[in-house]
Amino acid sequence: MARAPHLRLSIQSASGRRAGALDLVQAVLAEQSAGRLPPGARMPPVRALEHQLGISKNTVQAAYDELCQRGVLEARSRAGVFVRQPDDYLPPPERDLSAPAPHLNSLAVDHQARLASGDTYLSAVFVDPELLPHKQLSDCIRSVLSLPGLPTFYDAQGYPPLRELIAARLCARGIRTSADEVLVTTGSQQALDVVSRALAPRCIAFENPIYRYARLLFEAHNLRLVPLDLDPFESIDFATWERDLANNRPGLMYAITSFQNPTGHSYSSHELERLLELAQRLDFALLEDDWGSDMLSENDYRPSLRALGGENVLYVNSFTKKLLPSLRLGYVLCSRVAMPALLAAKRLATLGNATLMEAALAEFLDRGYYDTHLNRVQKALDERYHACLDALEELMPEGVRWTTPGGGPILWLSVPDSVNLPALAARMAEQHIRIELMPQAFVGRPHLHGFPIGYAFYPPERLRAALECLSKELSRA
Amino acid sequence: MARAPHLRLSIQSASGRRAGALDLVQAVLAEQSAGRLPPGARMPPVRALEHQLGISKNTVQAAYDELCQRGVLEARSRAGVFVRQPDDYLPPPERDLSAPAPHLNSLAVDHQARLASGDTYLSAVFVDPELLPHKQLSDCIRSVLSLPGLPTFYDAQGYPPLRELIAARLCARGIRTSADEVLVTTGSQQALDVVSRALAPRCIAFENPIYRYARLLFEAHNLRLVPLDLDPFESIDFATWERDLANNRPGLMYAITSFQNPTGHSYSSHELERLLELAQRLDFALLEDDWGSDMLSENDYRPSLRALGGENVLYVNSFTKKLLPSLRLGYVLCSRVAMPALLAAKRLATLGNATLMEAALAEFLDRGYYDTHLNRVQKALDERYHACLDALEELMPEGVRWTTPGGGPILWLSVPDSVNLPALAARMAEQHIRIELMPQAFVGRPHLHGFPIGYAFYPPERLRAALECLSKELSRA
Repeated sequence: MARAPHLRLSIQSASGRRAGALDLVQAVLAEQSAGRLPPGARMPPVRALEHQLGISKNTVQAAYDELCQRGVLEARSRAGVFVRQPDDYLPPPERDLSAPAPHLNSLAVDHQARLASGDTYLSAVFVDPELLPHKQLSDCIRSVLSLPGLPTFYDAQGYPPLRELIAARLCARGIRTSADEVLVTTGSQQALDVVSRALAPRCIAFENPIYRYARLLFEAHNLRLVPLDLDPFESIDFATWERDLANNRPGLMYAITSFQNPTGHSYSSHELERLLELAQRLDFALLEDDWGSDMLSENDYRPSLRALGGENVLYVNSFTKKLLPSLRLGYVLCSRVAMPALLAAKRLATLGNATLMEAALAEFLDRGYYDTHLNRVQKALDERYHACLDALEELMPEGVRWTTPGGGPILWLSVPDSVNLPALAARMAEQHIRIELMPQAFVGRPHLHGFPIGYAFYPPERLRAALECLSKELSRA
Repeated sequence: MARAPHLRLSIQSASGRRAGALDLVQAVLAEQSAGRLPPGARMPPVRALEHQLGISKNTVQAAYDELCQRGVLEARSRAGVFVRQPDDYLPPPERDLSAPAPHLNSLAVDHQARLASGDTYLSAVFVDPELLPHKQLSDCIRSVLSLPGLPTFYDAQGYPPLRELIAARLCARGIRTSADEVLVTTGSQQALDVVSRALAPRCIAFENPIYRYARLLFEAHNLRLVPLDLDPFESIDFATWERDLANNRPGLMYAITSFQNPTGHSYSSHELERLLELAQRLDFALLEDDWGSDMLSENDYRPSLRALGGENVLYVNSFTKKLLPSLRLGYVLCSRVAMPALLAAKRLATLGNATLMEAALAEFLDRGYYDTHLNRVQKALDERYHACLDALEELMPEGVRWTTPGGGPILWLSVPDSVNLPALAARMAEQHIRIELMPQAFVGRPHLHGFPIGYAFYPPERLRAALECLSKELSRA
């Protein structure tokens, strides 16, 4: 910090002789009278004046001490010596700069930081860092740094080779698209943000409960919400959905088609077709969040809404959860008609992403690492999923039910209505096991009584130990 | 892409003998009748069926060809074989997914990509990539990859050691703050975005002309705009500003205090004090954009509004222009009262940044590279600035005026009112020299007739050649 900027004083040493501390004091006072010492400005460091005026460090320090005593300057530890502000100096008013929506303040809590604590988070939706390809990603970053080198500029739509590789990947999954329909975003969160802020529809339907950051985002953008109740133990009640959609006529529906967060629900092929048919009949666009399908084992693969419905389905996906949370890369696929609006919204929001990360991800995809990685992760998640089912089967008392999503990271655990959930969470927290109740995931009164269990983050033994504790507390309740 | 997901067919080879192509065709048709072939799904690759059924590649291919001919499947080049969608399959409606504000579509143009073209961009505000510390940044990234390693998670507020280093740096510049008042953002653009979307004031004042991405952002967030005319050849007309502020009572004023974009204007210490006094009297908060002060040579240093006005001044800065555009890192400094709102807005927008970039920047600051770099850049920019002034002095015809910002990247060139700016720009474009007229930078009818000249991006000889062309065209006009 030695080179932080400071004032330059136009003090000359007196003719013939070396300046003393008093000369310096008077010279500074003269500068002040001439209005050349703005309050708050940093004075030259002692060393700099020593050099400039050819006087000793001690002389400069003595002058500064004197000026501090007179209230002209003030010393701040480790920062330097500054021109003091007069006491009657008026700061700008303390205006109301708080959020208009106080419930958003809960977002200030850092859930990820807590994952590193000693507690066990039973509802964690992240994948175990041990399963993530740190080494391969580091190799790709090093490779980009060597050749072609650290990129200077960014492309607001996303690094073109990355968009090409994403489009090729999607084509192989039955989605007809090309690089110019891909907009790279800072995770899928920014994809939802640019869609919410840019596009014409101002009323949005979604499965209820819903990923809470999506719900809070839609609310923050003043979208009108149309919640469609989802019961993960039943097939979708399309009759009720149709009634709610017909009554509210949303312009857009947000659907998480695989491993819905927080229920773990995945649409069957038949349900996907019913939804497309409803969109056609009731004239709403679709925003598909396909974060989960990469975690489905190959034999459970179903085509996406975007594959079935064509380019008018907006399609969002992310590499974050599956590759590395700190990568912060996702994308939205849209038609050429919608792209200018989404691209403008992204420019206004962040201009672009760190190109190095985009280029490293392109390298990672190009080397085929992503497919190898997904294959490994799918196997590991399948093992953890089955271990979790076995533990639940063995441990859970009567009246507790759970969904069987067929793999992935989360399932929904339903407990008897008589269980007081906040009390249960409090008793488990005392034993350093955390369950996440999801009041913000439900719009209106929750129609499900339970919480998600994540089995991707911890090794089976640790999850089992936590489930044993849960079982005891449930039996007691 | 070999591992893209596909259906798994439950076809058994007929008892005792190897299945032929016809067996396979019939088995697929049976699957279809049973509803197990969703349209758009990918069929198993030829190799996979060869392996599963123990039949030859040619047999599988023959069966697929037959099924394609019958319209059951369709082959897509390089992607695979897919279940065909019936022709009466209804796609979702093509809804109006365009932007509500068509003028934003101009943002789809990529200005940076154009900088790499052969044309000379006279209004470029970027710093020459040759002057940027690619090697030192790469070293820091490699260092983070080795130790502590590629970070798994992110901190929504910003990597804590980076926030510590930013706060220490600001303290050395006379700003009293600490790491918990720093919110790291994706460049200063995201800092402006989170402020615009999160905070209570919905009416904002700013210097007119204004950085156009800020103006478009404020408009997109439905803020009411209060433009305060700035003439970079005169001191600020505070009487007019006070009248406009008193009539409109904005809650916030956005001010670029050094090297204002696009005029190159820097506030004098006296002007900073007048502005603080106005904010106090007319009760508005201040949002200071201090992107330019790091490019001021040391002896031109002035304290920031935030240093003078204290914690109620929101303060935005960025490393992007000065270090590397593709780094995409900036920050906003705010009081503890405003932080929860800004942090919530950032979470909803992007959750967080790529942690690796934040950690590498922390390493860069910690090693003292930033100060060495700024010192070098300031010297180079000062040289280019003086070369530009010399060229203008020598070349420009009568009636042309320019500001003398004292360094930095841009100045404002004023041309006689008789010059038709679009015609001038068109004639210069024919000679591969681009000037950027800034209709979106002015709110209302422009009161300045000219455009910015950037001298940071090209070596002096190239800039001089472009100015020669400009001079000829101006003399002709």
